[in-house]
Amino acid sequence: MKKDALDAIALSVRSLSMDAVQAANSGHPGLPMGLAELGSALYGEVMSHYPGDPNWPDRDRFVLSAGHGSMLLYSLLHLSGYKVSLDDLKNFRQVGSITPGHPEYGETEGVETTTGPLGQGISNAVGMALAESKLEHVFNTDTHKVVDHYTYVIAGDGDMMEGISSEACSLAGHLGLGKLIVFYDDNHISIEGDTALAFTEDVEKRFEAFGWQTMSGDAYDTENLFKMIEEAKKDATRPTLIRLRSVIGKGSPNKAGTAAVHGAALGEDEVALSKRELGLDENEHFYIHPKAVEYFENRKKELERQYKEWKSTFEEWAKANPELKKLWDRYFDSSIAEARKELSLPAFEKGEKIATRKASGAILQELAKAIPNLIGGSADLAPSNNSTLEDWGNFSAEERLGRTLHFGVREHAMGAITSGIYLHGGFRPYAATFMVFTDYMRGSMRLAALMGLPVVYVMTHDSIYVGEDGPTHEPVEHYAALRAIPNMRFIRPGDAEETAEAWMMALEHEEGPTVLSLTRQKLAVYEKADPNWRENFRRGGYVVKATDGRPDVVVVTTGSEVSLALEAAEKSKRTVQVVSISDRELFEAQDESFRERVIPSGVRTVVAEVGVLQGWEGYVQSKEDLFGLNRFGASGKGAEVAAHLGYTAEGLTKVIDR
Amino acid sequence: MKKDALDAIALSVRSLSMDAVQAANSGHPGLPMGLAELGSALYGEVMSHYPGDPNWPDRDRFVLSAGHGSMLLYSLLHLSGYKVSLDDLKNFRQVGSITPGHPEYGETEGVETTTGPLGQGISNAVGMALAESKLEHVFNTDTHKVVDHYTYVIAGDGDMMEGISSEACSLAGHLGLGKLIVFYDDNHISIEGDTALAFTEDVEKRFEAFGWQTMSGDAYDTENLFKMIEEAKKDATRPTLIRLRSVIGKGSPNKAGTAAVHGAALGEDEVALSKRELGLDENEHFYIHPKAVEYFENRKKELERQYKEWKSTFEEWAKANPELKKLWDRYFDSSIAEARKELSLPAFEKGEKIATRKASGAILQELAKAIPNLIGGSADLAPSNNSTLEDWGNFSAEERLGRTLHFGVREHAMGAITSGIYLHGGFRPYAATFMVFTDYMRGSMRLAALMGLPVVYVMTHDSIYVGEDGPTHEPVEHYAALRAIPNMRFIRPGDAEETAEAWMMALEHEEGPTVLSLTRQKLAVYEKADPNWRENFRRGGYVVKATDGRPDVVVVTTGSEVSLALEAAEKSKRTVQVVSISDRELFEAQDESFRERVIPSGVRTVVAEVGVLQGWEGYVQSKEDLFGLNRFGASGKGAEVAAHLGYTAEGLTKVIDR
Repeated sequence: MKKDALDAIALSVRSLSMDAVQAANSGHPGLPMGLAELGSALYGEVMSHYPGDPNWPDRDRFVLSAGHGSMLLYSLLHLSGYKVSLDDLKNFRQVGSITPGHPEYGETEGVETTTGPLGQGISNAVGMALAESKLEHVFNTDTHKVVDHYTYVIAGDGDMMEGISSEACSLAGHLGLGKLIVFYDDNHISIEGDTALAFTEDVEKRFEAFGWQTMSGDAYDTENLFKMIEEAKKDATRPTLIRLRSVIGKGSPNKAGTAAVHGAALGEDEVALSKRELGLDENEHFYIHPKAVEYFENRKKELERQYKEWKSTFEEWAKANPELKKLWDRYFDSSIAEARKELSLPAFEKGEKIATRKASGAILQELAKAIPNLIGGSADLAPSNNSTLEDWGNFSAEERLGRTLHFGVREHAMGAITSGIYLHGGFRPYAATFMVFTDYMRGSMRLAALMGLPVVYVMTHDSIYVGEDGPTHEPVEHYAALRAIPNMRFIRPGDAEETAEAWMMALEHEEGPTVLSLTRQKLAVYEKADPNWRENFRRGGYVVKATDGRPDVVVVTTGSEVSLALEAAEKSKRTVQVVSISDRELFEAQDESFRERVIPSGVRTVVAEVGVLQGWEGYVQSKEDLFGLNRFGASGKGAEVAAHLGYTAEGLTKVIDR
Repeated sequence: MKKDALDAIALSVRSLSMDAVQAANSGHPGLPMGLAELGSALYGEVMSHYPGDPNWPDRDRFVLSAGHGSMLLYSLLHLSGYKVSLDDLKNFRQVGSITPGHPEYGETEGVETTTGPLGQGISNAVGMALAESKLEHVFNTDTHKVVDHYTYVIAGDGDMMEGISSEACSLAGHLGLGKLIVFYDDNHISIEGDTALAFTEDVEKRFEAFGWQTMSGDAYDTENLFKMIEEAKKDATRPTLIRLRSVIGKGSPNKAGTAAVHGAALGEDEVALSKRELGLDENEHFYIHPKAVEYFENRKKELERQYKEWKSTFEEWAKANPELKKLWDRYFDSSIAEARKELSLPAFEKGEKIATRKASGAILQELAKAIPNLIGGSADLAPSNNSTLEDWGNFSAEERLGRTLHFGVREHAMGAITSGIYLHGGFRPYAATFMVFTDYMRGSMRLAALMGLPVVYVMTHDSIYVGEDGPTHEPVEHYAALRAIPNMRFIRPGDAEETAEAWMMALEHEEGPTVLSLTRQKLAVYEKADPNWRENFRRGGYVVKATDGRPDVVVVTTGSEVSLALEAAEKSKRTVQVVSISDRELFEAQDESFRERVIPSGVRTVVAEVGVLQGWEGYVQSKEDLFGLNRFGASGKGAEVAAHLGYTAEGLTKVIDR
């Protein structure tokens, strides 16, 4: 790539970014102006992608982890030929535009993930690189490489400060994800001022400690930049960090290099001065250098050639390897419709006592056989979460075919990496830990919900019945907190049979993530009064125990409290109907007749769930009919903790009989 | 300390830990057995503390960040003379005991913080060391040192993997907290197996990158251990990491060095074999070596001498520096009763338009004058959070007297450090960021609630009115998610005047943390119908707008929706009473007559809050009267986003008038 073309593109990026932010009078001109050259190099030459098919499976992935610099990405998507028009740029940060304040997955072609909350993008990218390395080993043959691409990331100081990136990058180094290349925008400026206020660590050294290859250079020495990228690619066994010393807001004569240019429009005057400084006409807005246009016209042809070359390689490969091609189609179809045909889930005996986490483990083994692209693991709690895919080996630096992931004690990164694996394409990933540690990974879970990614969170040890580990390990508020997240499914099965249905609900739900809430303690598999219980459970809930005629009381429960309610119903002097709700939100979305069959109106309702009952208030006529828990747990044997807190069948019976 | 005494203590720790875990048939023998020598060295010689006064302000602090190894701590507290009896050890992990599964602050004398969720303790310790360094500079004189102690931490592999510890330790290095000494228990074992499964980074090198002094040695070479600790203390400008190569479960012939000994009792047989290996009588339980008893009897006298010496120094100092002594009393009285006398909060004009975050900033300046030990800061959003103490300088490596903390983009560590500052004693700390990033710091917020620490979280940009930054930065589910945490206060003031009351509520509440939910957007200061509104706001809520006679509709609102409701009330054809709820839980805790005066029963109620309305269901007769938001936000101008989502005064009026 010739320097004049690169300069023309960089100039255009600066011009577009300044003007778009100014037009919105909101946004972050600092990063796009500071890294215009890097962006131009990536989209102009380094990256193998094809604007004509943004979903090309073998494209290089680009993640703007410093998502506030979105105008860098939008400018480059526009210039390089994606469906981002000049009008879209002019509508930056406006309602309904495809150029929102931070890049949003699904809103804009060419945006690989939603970024903004710092540290998430770079951690997603670790998942993407992991997915790539795995697909390489599953599908490439000696004669055909159908998977062979890089994941590029731009990360800022904030990304580097967030703990999640340390977690993810430590794991990336451990796993030797050599095709991950991160550019660290070392501009010395954070919102509160110079990064020296709070951040003086040696970032390169830290990444070396993580096992990365590291380099550094001037962000504007483009010749050296290309060399460093070549160097980065040569090392196939280590991810690379390229630290670029840059000037935030470069091009603005009065604000460059200051916190003032980070997160606010330059102001009309400074935009004019900047344009003058850059040799632009200050009266022209959204200027694009003709050489940039010309360059990308040619570049697009070259990229089309690369794309078509891949296509023909892929066709040859498919012809030569029909079984692999079939497998490819399974991998790249996120639906599990095919799998259902082969799937035989384990059967459980009525009365059998088995923790739902354990049932989940057994189910998972069967799912793994039928769903070849199901991969996942735990944040170092696999034996407790029952989340290991037992017959399929560990994924590691040495063995890319293994399907069990070992995330280490890194819940937050686990969440983001799992999302990244899904975003890359090719997999149905899951992540497991104790439910209480969803608190550590909420940042990444929220983004999965926002993006609508069908990842599965296997959250075991879901209540005070955890017992001896005590209140630090006992979820109480987590049902409420997780249900509150829009587009997050929360399913709490009551026994092993329901757990199987819950897994199917999670895998068949393609519009967003699902939390499976599973017990540590054993629960008996119970008789179900409803002959269509499986179907109805999947619709949100069903009648576990019916009464002859109209019941006195309906006890609405979830998870382990179904058993508790069945016991209480036996003890009660009233006639009691017991209902198991799988997913409250889904239940509420059903039509009235369905809901009425499960919870008949006009009958007194009691809700029993061993946690904060926020959101159940509408189900009862009196607060006294809410049998929940409004305090932290305690350490002791599970049953004794429950007794200590009054959370027993007797306690529930009293509420029913009051 | 002689080796035979140390060995006798270590032997006793192993014996007590094995037996206690076996008796509970639950717990973690691996760490106490692996680090028995280190624990013995710390409690036997290194640490300056005094079991006779566990709250001695100048004691060394000890944090068992790897909280699962609680029997190490309990054994040593027992041996060294704290109020932990042999019976307490025998009741390990039982309901009602003072020896819960993980150490809990407030339950057991000598436990400095609640640990268990990994990474929290080490991050609390950074806060403690920060507090110590600050107090040194505030109170010590050339002739008297009344503050001069160390913070010691035991951290495991899990602590090292968690991102929060990277955040906290990077900041500790930056701030040069030289009196922080962390022992890293490098035992190569995690729950899923060898740490090599997921964790192969060079930890020492990472800490060097953070600016720490690092050393390493064998956990059982105690002579060298003492030397390293001396070495660590010599460097006053850098925190120290001492990596100790250890054997998990040392003493167990068949399980030492394996994951099997991490988190489960050894089993009767292996306990017996271990005792034999250690030269103990396998039939004797909870054995304590007589030399250990004898040693600690003498040690206690020596510690008493140190304690009394400090007391007399303190008295001399107090006599020589009466003003400083007065200040000391203010610092170490967490109540703000004294401050109230001097405090004059800013007044706001009715009709004045001011964002509550901005009002909060103005209030904070006045609070800072009256409350000398109020310190805090933001995770790099201070200009947006209005959280800087403007006249009081920055706390830094060079300037310990500064009161504004710069946490960097490290929300999770900020939470834990803030708790650590409070736990140390001497301060009333606060922490600020955008509300959406409470997702990043929930782990530490939950522990603050569990411990009952009165820290204040200043959470600005509290809704979709954030606007242009888009859904990644717009809280929607956060009111529900934060209210769900037991013992967490959540206050959402509606204008500048209410913001002042909210701050006072937060500071006067000494039993737990408070979240202040503050707006980005401007809000007019409104007239309040209730003449006692200040008092009633502090009790949970009051009538902002009353009607002549009984209203048709009561609109129950919080925060920015009070203004919306006032506007809607004007537009409505009905007579409307508008209520501002400060803290829903507090309101619900009031007696019926209070609640009835605010929300009269029998009148139709509408709830308006611009988020997920989980938990408000009990206030309305019909779900259609819940005017909330059940989806993520969007990017655009705040008002346009609201309009796009139908969240307008017109929308609310329709609900009122339906």
